[in-house]
Amino acid sequence: MTGKLYIIGLGPGDINLRTTEVCQILPHLTDLVGYAPYVERIETTSTVRRHVSDNRQELERARHALTLAEQGHIVGVISSGDAGIFAMASTVFEAIETGNPLWKQLEIIVLPGLSAMFAAAARLGAPLGHDFCAISLSDNLKPWDVILRRLRLAAEGDFVMALYNPVSRSRPWQLDAAFDLLRSLLPTSITVAFAHAISQDDENIHLTTLAEASAKMADMRTLIIIGSRYSRLIPREKAKLPWFYTPRSIKEN
Amino acid sequence: MTGKLYIIGLGPGDINLRTTEVCQILPHLTDLVGYAPYVERIETTSTVRRHVSDNRQELERARHALTLAEQGHIVGVISSGDAGIFAMASTVFEAIETGNPLWKQLEIIVLPGLSAMFAAAARLGAPLGHDFCAISLSDNLKPWDVILRRLRLAAEGDFVMALYNPVSRSRPWQLDAAFDLLRSLLPTSITVAFAHAISQDDENIHLTTLAEASAKMADMRTLIIIGSRYSRLIPREKAKLPWFYTPRSIKEN
Repeated sequence: MTGKLYIIGLGPGDINLRTTEVCQILPHLTDLVGYAPYVERIETTSTVRRHVSDNRQELERARHALTLAEQGHIVGVISSGDAGIFAMASTVFEAIETGNPLWKQLEIIVLPGLSAMFAAAARLGAPLGHDFCAISLSDNLKPWDVILRRLRLAAEGDFVMALYNPVSRSRPWQLDAAFDLLRSLLPTSITVAFAHAISQDDENIHLTTLAEASAKMADMRTLIIIGSRYSRLIPREKAKLPWFYTPRSIKEN
Repeated sequence: MTGKLYIIGLGPGDINLRTTEVCQILPHLTDLVGYAPYVERIETTSTVRRHVSDNRQELERARHALTLAEQGHIVGVISSGDAGIFAMASTVFEAIETGNPLWKQLEIIVLPGLSAMFAAAARLGAPLGHDFCAISLSDNLKPWDVILRRLRLAAEGDFVMALYNPVSRSRPWQLDAAFDLLRSLLPTSITVAFAHAISQDDENIHLTTLAEASAKMADMRTLIIIGSRYSRLIPREKAKLPWFYTPRSIKEN
């Protein structure tokens, strides 16, 4: 089979946060497959075919991309951020495992990208500077109990947490339930950062405490970083946000 | 003050894995500060001054960089991977918090990069496709007990784990102790990936099970990814590694 399938992470939005590797591959693709807002970000002048679909149709989309590659196309499956983090790469491999046995012979290349939490962390200071977890708050694909258990264990371990998919129209209450759980386990003075659409035109950052954190501060395009008890704020002159960082060292008592 | 300090993540090695933003800034720097092998990766033709230092001199190095910026230089503090993940960004903010009060007025810009775990995950398939933790195994900066506790909690939560700094000359036994602990908590059939020097000339990947995993398989430049009980391998034709991925969904029992 001569087709190829690239699974591509575009980074958080700003074209300057793409890797050179991704920039070099995009003009060679014959077909782009992905969630419409991500595919529309690609400003190619070639005659590439765009196959856009709604969110939550991931497995169907992955199968369509694999079928195109099987037919000899050079296909790019497009994700925002890193394709391997709560994005299309896992879905493509799930489609391969459960689908047409020929797909296992395809050339599949994953091109990593900058995930939202790193773009957000860079804007904030260095909140992910020590051990951390990334947790998706979406209970579309896993039981809510699993999410609560992971939040509890991450809090017990003093991991910094990056929360992906914090809210959506169909999941309005989960984020406040997560904050309620964490308030029962952690000092409520811990810093919480709401990083919205980092590197995009409507980028917005809001810093607050766990005590004050609320789902009203987030939408589908918000990445949330919850500090650990070791994380710190460095106040700066007025009109500038403090720097938010987690030291690399923990001193013995 | 007219100086600026950029904290720069170079990505895992291959120049094509840098962001465009990083490529654009490098020629404008007057001073590069960092661990020698990272600074030497930068092939600038300008008259940039290079200030290299040994590993484990991070705080001193950060203070030196801040002093240069205070004097009006355009300084780049260089890290491999992402500067915010077990790297120099946290150290710079620690130096700012505890150092010359003038440093709080400096312009500090963190330029994120591709951390080793994402480059490794992309080569392997999509092992970080679901909730995961990043843990540094170095007990130079934190008590070993904290590391063991975090490994235990991450195992209890079925997080996929990315282990940074798995071994060094001064830390020969910690990784095997970590594997021993995890073998007592998790199915020993779980996949463990040793990803050495990803995207560099001596890149090497070794896949094994938790039962067989050993510190002999790692060195200072190895990133280890330990699957969860939900992670899967997709066998391929001979001579090709299986794909290693973690599905995005967990079905209710």
